[in-house]
Amino acid sequence: MAPQYAPSLRSRLGPILLFLQIGFIVIFAFYIEIDNEQIDKNKFSNLYPEFQDVNVMVFLSFGFLYSFFVRYGFSGSGFNFLVAIMATQWAILLNGIESWYSRGKIRVNLRSLVVAELCASSALISIGAMVGKTNPVHLILIALLEVSGFVLNQWLLQTLLKVQLLNSIMMLHIFGSFFGLMLTLILHRTESEQQFEKEKFDRKTGLFSMLGTLLLWMFWPSFNSILVDDRGRKLGVVFCTYLALAVSAVTAAAVSVLSSPKGKLNLIHVQSCVFAGGVAIGLSMSVVHEPWQAMTIGFTAAVVSTIGFRYLKIHMLLAFHSHDTFAVLSTHGLPGLLGWLAHLLLQIKDSDDHTTAIRFAVFHICSLLITISLSLSMGIITGLLLKWNFWRPQQDKKCFDDQAFWEVGDRNESFNKKTLTSIRR
Amino acid sequence: MAPQYAPSLRSRLGPILLFLQIGFIVIFAFYIEIDNEQIDKNKFSNLYPEFQDVNVMVFLSFGFLYSFFVRYGFSGSGFNFLVAIMATQWAILLNGIESWYSRGKIRVNLRSLVVAELCASSALISIGAMVGKTNPVHLILIALLEVSGFVLNQWLLQTLLKVQLLNSIMMLHIFGSFFGLMLTLILHRTESEQQFEKEKFDRKTGLFSMLGTLLLWMFWPSFNSILVDDRGRKLGVVFCTYLALAVSAVTAAAVSVLSSPKGKLNLIHVQSCVFAGGVAIGLSMSVVHEPWQAMTIGFTAAVVSTIGFRYLKIHMLLAFHSHDTFAVLSTHGLPGLLGWLAHLLLQIKDSDDHTTAIRFAVFHICSLLITISLSLSMGIITGLLLKWNFWRPQQDKKCFDDQAFWEVGDRNESFNKKTLTSIRR
Amino acid sequence: MAPQYAPSLRSRLGPILLFLQIGFIVIFAFYIEIDNEQIDKNKFSNLYPEFQDVNVMVFLSFGFLYSFFVRYGFSGSGFNFLVAIMATQWAILLNGIESWYSRGKIRVNLRSLVVAELCASSALISIGAMVGKTNPVHLILIALLEVSGFVLNQWLLQTLLKVQLLNSIMMLHIFGSFFGLMLTLILHRTESEQQFEKEKFDRKTGLFSMLGTLLLWMFWPSFNSILVDDRGRKLGVVFCTYLALAVSAVTAAAVSVLSSPKGKLNLIHVQSCVFAGGVAIGLSMSVVHEPWQAMTIGFTAAVVSTIGFRYLKIHMLLAFHSHDTFAVLSTHGLPGLLGWLAHLLLQIKDSDDHTTAIRFAVFHICSLLITISLSLSMGIITGLLLKWNFWRPQQDKKCFDDQAFWEVGDRNESFNKKTLTSIRR
Repeated sequence: MAPQYAPSLRSRLGPILLFLQIGFIVIFAFYIEIDNEQIDKNKFSNLYPEFQDVNVMVFLSFGFLYSFFVRYGFSGSGFNFLVAIMATQWAILLNGIESWYSRGKIRVNLRSLVVAELCASSALISIGAMVGKTNPVHLILIALLEVSGFVLNQWLLQTLLKVQLLNSIMMLHIFGSFFGLMLTLILHRTESEQQFEKEKFDRKTGLFSMLGTLLLWMFWPSFNSILVDDRGRKLGVVFCTYLALAVSAVTAAAVSVLSSPKGKLNLIHVQSCVFAGGVAIGLSMSVVHEPWQAMTIGFTAAVVSTIGFRYLKIHMLLAFHSHDTFAVLSTHGLPGLLGWLAHLLLQIKDSDDHTTAIRFAVFHICSLLITISLSLSMGIITGLLLKWNFWRPQQDKKCFDDQAFWEVGDRNESFNKKTLTSIRR
Repeated sequence: MAPQYAPSLRSRLGPILLFLQIGFIVIFAFYIEIDNEQIDKNKFSNLYPEFQDVNVMVFLSFGFLYSFFVRYGFSGSGFNFLVAIMATQWAILLNGIESWYSRGKIRVNLRSLVVAELCASSALISIGAMVGKTNPVHLILIALLEVSGFVLNQWLLQTLLKVQLLNSIMMLHIFGSFFGLMLTLILHRTESEQQFEKEKFDRKTGLFSMLGTLLLWMFWPSFNSILVDDRGRKLGVVFCTYLALAVSAVTAAAVSVLSSPKGKLNLIHVQSCVFAGGVAIGLSMSVVHEPWQAMTIGFTAAVVSTIGFRYLKIHMLLAFHSHDTFAVLSTHGLPGLLGWLAHLLLQIKDSDDHTTAIRFAVFHICSLLITISLSLSMGIITGLLLKWNFWRPQQDKKCFDDQAFWEVGDRNESFNKKTLTSIRR
Repeated sequence: MAPQYAPSLRSRLGPILLFLQIGFIVIFAFYIEIDNEQIDKNKFSNLYPEFQDVNVMVFLSFGFLYSFFVRYGFSGSGFNFLVAIMATQWAILLNGIESWYSRGKIRVNLRSLVVAELCASSALISIGAMVGKTNPVHLILIALLEVSGFVLNQWLLQTLLKVQLLNSIMMLHIFGSFFGLMLTLILHRTESEQQFEKEKFDRKTGLFSMLGTLLLWMFWPSFNSILVDDRGRKLGVVFCTYLALAVSAVTAAAVSVLSSPKGKLNLIHVQSCVFAGGVAIGLSMSVVHEPWQAMTIGFTAAVVSTIGFRYLKIHMLLAFHSHDTFAVLSTHGLPGLLGWLAHLLLQIKDSDDHTTAIRFAVFHICSLLITISLSLSMGIITGLLLKWNFWRPQQDKKCFDDQAFWEVGDRNESFNKKTLTSIRR
């Protein structure tokens, strides 16, 4: 039998990218203006280095983390980059709707870019669940819909429950992972139950993935603290995130060794679970003041996350037919929920009287329920849309394979030779 | 037939490096002093993070971008590093000539280093055209002569036409690419018409190259804005560069898919053309104030650049015998010209009266003509010098091969074993 | 004969990590508090970007430099990361003992983290000598004992000899390399005399190592200047370190070519020796004021370091049975001693009268003697402790092999498949 080719995306990806990009340019032309007036000289300089840290995380680290699979490196890093760009532009617009409604114009500054990239990173988390099984058109649709849902969620939390921006935006871990989970349920491929042919890594792709991991790990304190304005609290957030991440990394390694029959470390478990503390602190940072609290949260999060990756992932696949490539449920969902819980408990402990405590608890639980409901609903809508064959999904055999999307020769042949020959004829 | 070895560079590279380096130390000893007096505490701190961003671009990103070829990784990254260091030291001296002439000493500070690295990066662009076909001695000569020409060009533009430093230095894209183009014409190898045996990439080198690309892409806003002093304008430059780069990346992907018969992305096209917007904004940033202008410039630049890489490169090779390895004409030259044109058009649009507009246009056109003439002439001189066999060029078979320059065993054998054995005998 | 498996670390690594980490959390809970009061808004912002540079060096660059060996990438980068985290936490506590003794609490801020990471980096240097021949339990013990010794050394220098923090902490290069050297002597494996089977690199691991090298090289100015408070001196330190590193890189390349019979560059020599200037300036920066002094020091350090790597390493192995994997003696020890000597000479030259000069010389020589004695003694103690088979060292055949510690299949098989199958049965 002749080898099957993956369907060409020429008539899908190209037009969609051009349409969206030209659309963004037109909207930016009419509604976006740069906020030159309110510039505080020092603020820009203080924000810029952290902005670049977040850039590294969003555009580079996630992508290299997703380059784990042996034949999926270009797609892992390249599509993450593409998706992050589209999602950021889209988030700038969505975040400005309110200001557009009241003033007719959206004023943007460096902080707007940062907020937009944080929104985009919630989409990148969702994508972690679908890596390898989607084409770039799917990924862009996921990103746009996920970001829309997330911005709507933020607006609901801020408007209905008066949740602060910092707390509502850190829901990104929970929103992103439940959204991704729902996609895995709806877009299940039967092949995934026997493992995909190309779903494996080697010594070199593991190192690229390690690079992404370490960059993410190091810059996570910037990710958590960039929107904190008060310098004093900023030091606290940086410090607590740093310690929580440190404890997470050590704990993830320990749990990985202890849960392995041969007493060996599992690269992907360790790589994904070292962030658990950073995720959990993200959701609880406004009430974590002592280093040991951060460390305990980091410890618990890493235990939950590593055990989840080791055992939960496979049972989710067998029991619920949910093939969650990077186990976003374990790596972002569970630590996120844990951070949410820590926030609740610490806030109640700090409350002076029962009324405030109960009032806070109700609000806090509502915000979680809203986030999860909206995330699951948007996941269902997106999943159903993506089931449409119009988007030309690749065959099961072409999952986790760059060859479906990139001009990569079999046996690593170069293509220029063929091009050259064909031109000469 | 016994395998042919590449000529040994022992008697060329070693002495040249030592001679130049000791020469630099001697000149630095007599004429360089650190500018401790004018230090503004905040200015240093504000500049330092951006300085490190530019460092990453110059010393690391270009090199990893040039590590694209499967057997040329050490040379791609290593020689870029070596050349960048030599060119930066040389540029510090050349940029200080005027101050040396008037005061007898060259005073340097962090800003001098930054300007010198920007000058060095023009040489790194030229080298992009010659990657794989030159030895390190060639590369160092190219770098020194290119930087000399570029600094002379800057001096001419600033003295004769009163062009601002910021505008004259951004000519680096045009100067570097035309210089490199002229080298490809003069140093043509007949082998290149059938493609070099080792001019190909694989899944792993493509990822190293992706790493270089993403780092360049992310830090480009620092590259464009680092010499802008005014905070207000700085935000504008950062924002416009960011958006132009975002649009470029999406557009490059779209054009790459649309122009591929199989509807696939081409890694090297995408990697090289995502910067087109950054290049074009670099040349027009002093007149681009609205985000949509930046986005439109980024869009056009990416279209021109990607189409250029896809079709122009091969025709340049067949028609003019110009083998331009990384297509610097398409990736820096054409977007640079486009940025220059955008500058002209926007400035004329903004002018109050005809006289100013015409006056500006004449000056602007002259500055382009001077740059291109000087660049081509210096390219011819350098090319003729490099034709001399004294520099021991490698054979065609050893092009794109680390083995000509690095102690890499065939079949990846380690060399220590041999050394160990030979010592024992 | 059936393949031998490396001993399982399940009952060693897991419990030790958990015990230490939980211990750290408990101690942090009682004695650590965040220093919120003395926050100078600008200081935090100025320090933060340099802190991230140092983070990149400590957690990422050293690890990727140690990923040089073809089958040891995960261990090289992963264990470095783990060790750096443990050592940093431990150093925070040790550095705070004095403050705990006087006030009952240890107050920490961003600067404490930086100092702790610098202490940790001295352990990472020691580990360079043992890469490939140790298991992670060994590495953690080495790190804890090395850091204890180093902090004790600092305390002795500061208390007995009134050495400034900046000068005492830069002894890390000398302390780390002599400590590592002593370990290689005590933990000698006979196999190492014929070279280990897997002690070799390939084109891709060489590039990962290059990435580590370049990141280290670029951020070294931050490493040297981060604890310098005075802005004016800071510029000087940054500039001198930058120039010394530049000269080192060029000189290392030149010496490598000249000392190679075939006139080729040796990747690992160049990679390790480009830092020589940074190391030497680190130990002499308080007296180096002129750029040319820094450049001369960089030049000499690189010559010594490269020649040391090329010739000394092999003779150390044959004559003293010291297998120093990354030649830390040549890359940190000798340049460190050279920097120490430069400090002595320049200080004496600058002294007004003989008495001061002699007084300084005595103090300076004493500080070196104390450092070396303490480093060697701690090295002996640590080495003897590690000889205990309780820590389950891997066999000689499993040296430089990830398979002993990581779930990596032979022939790059994925493990999930097996797991999946075994669950289903």
